[in-house]
Amino acid sequence: MFSPLTQQLIDALKCLPGIGPKSAQRMAFQLLSDTGQAKGLKLADTLTNAIEKVGNCQRCQTYTENEVCLLCNNPKRDDTQLCIVETAADVIAIEQTNSYRGLYYVLHGHLSPLDGIGPQEIGIPALIERLTSEPITEVIIATNPTMEGKATAAYIASHIDHTKTKCSRIAHGVPLGGELEYLDSGTLTHALFSRVEMA
Amino acid sequence: MFSPLTQQLIDALKCLPGIGPKSAQRMAFQLLSDTGQAKGLKLADTLTNAIEKVGNCQRCQTYTENEVCLLCNNPKRDDTQLCIVETAADVIAIEQTNSYRGLYYVLHGHLSPLDGIGPQEIGIPALIERLTSEPITEVIIATNPTMEGKATAAYIASHIDHTKTKCSRIAHGVPLGGELEYLDSGTLTHALFSRVEMA
Repeated sequence: MFSPLTQQLIDALKCLPGIGPKSAQRMAFQLLSDTGQAKGLKLADTLTNAIEKVGNCQRCQTYTENEVCLLCNNPKRDDTQLCIVETAADVIAIEQTNSYRGLYYVLHGHLSPLDGIGPQEIGIPALIERLTSEPITEVIIATNPTMEGKATAAYIASHIDHTKTKCSRIAHGVPLGGELEYLDSGTLTHALFSRVEMA
Repeated sequence: MFSPLTQQLIDALKCLPGIGPKSAQRMAFQLLSDTGQAKGLKLADTLTNAIEKVGNCQRCQTYTENEVCLLCNNPKRDDTQLCIVETAADVIAIEQTNSYRGLYYVLHGHLSPLDGIGPQEIGIPALIERLTSEPITEVIIATNPTMEGKATAAYIASHIDHTKTKCSRIAHGVPLGGELEYLDSGTLTHALFSRVEMA
């Protein structure tokens, strides 16, 4: 029904997250149209360029085209705090809160022995090394509250020298503006057990 | 917050239809990840290749990398019927019904004088020329039931030699499986006025 090249383009677009056959078709026709061609060529160019040049920051492992990312290079950041997250997107989410001024460490995943992902694969040895060589006094673990995220947090916490470095985990519970009525029971159970005393 | 190249990639991805800043960020991180890079490079390659090679079919104006598209070249298609649609996506939608075996003509838009889009811009002269030079006996106009689509249909109908060529418009009304209760009143009014006598 589609010409071979159009079909190839649709198939390639389907590799994008959240894009099914129908959206891919819509994108393909838009990119092939007179108004879309220039944007499409620019996208292809930017994509190739970014994939070829962007790598991981040597200090925090987030994405950057330099050896060390802008955050790690920023002298205004507090280098005694280190926040450990699963993905680069989590760094962006925390940065958008404007409430954290320390540094980050991106694991690019979580422990998952069944998938062959152990401490080495998510860079935990390098993280431990960094904790000993840098003046970090507090580690904030912000892995996701999933089974794997929790296991990863526990593993990291067990490898930290608690006499030198404080180790905390971000709070989990009822989200602000959330209604108890619509919350899953797992979160609610956690919120009950982790109740905070009111002064 | 993002490295310059990552930001450029996110901006370029936002040109895709239906993709906002959040989806673009998700796509960018996925394409930069270890598992996404190969797919991303393939996408960039396919995209450049498709934009450079895919043009419009000389007969029906749909997208193809050949001079004439597969549909127009198919000897099994009925060359006495011509269906006029606004976009290449409409061709796919009609083909998926498996209920039309004729040929197509893609306008790539509709008449819109305020935007400077007249008959020339949507290839109506070439369409009229085709009607006289080919053995077409029936024209089915399937432009969208919008103000512009209707005006385009009326313009085309007024330029057809009705003594030689039958001209029809696809039916508009209550969609199958639709419930009257939830239908907009414009469609319902149209359905009432266009009522069909029951034999």
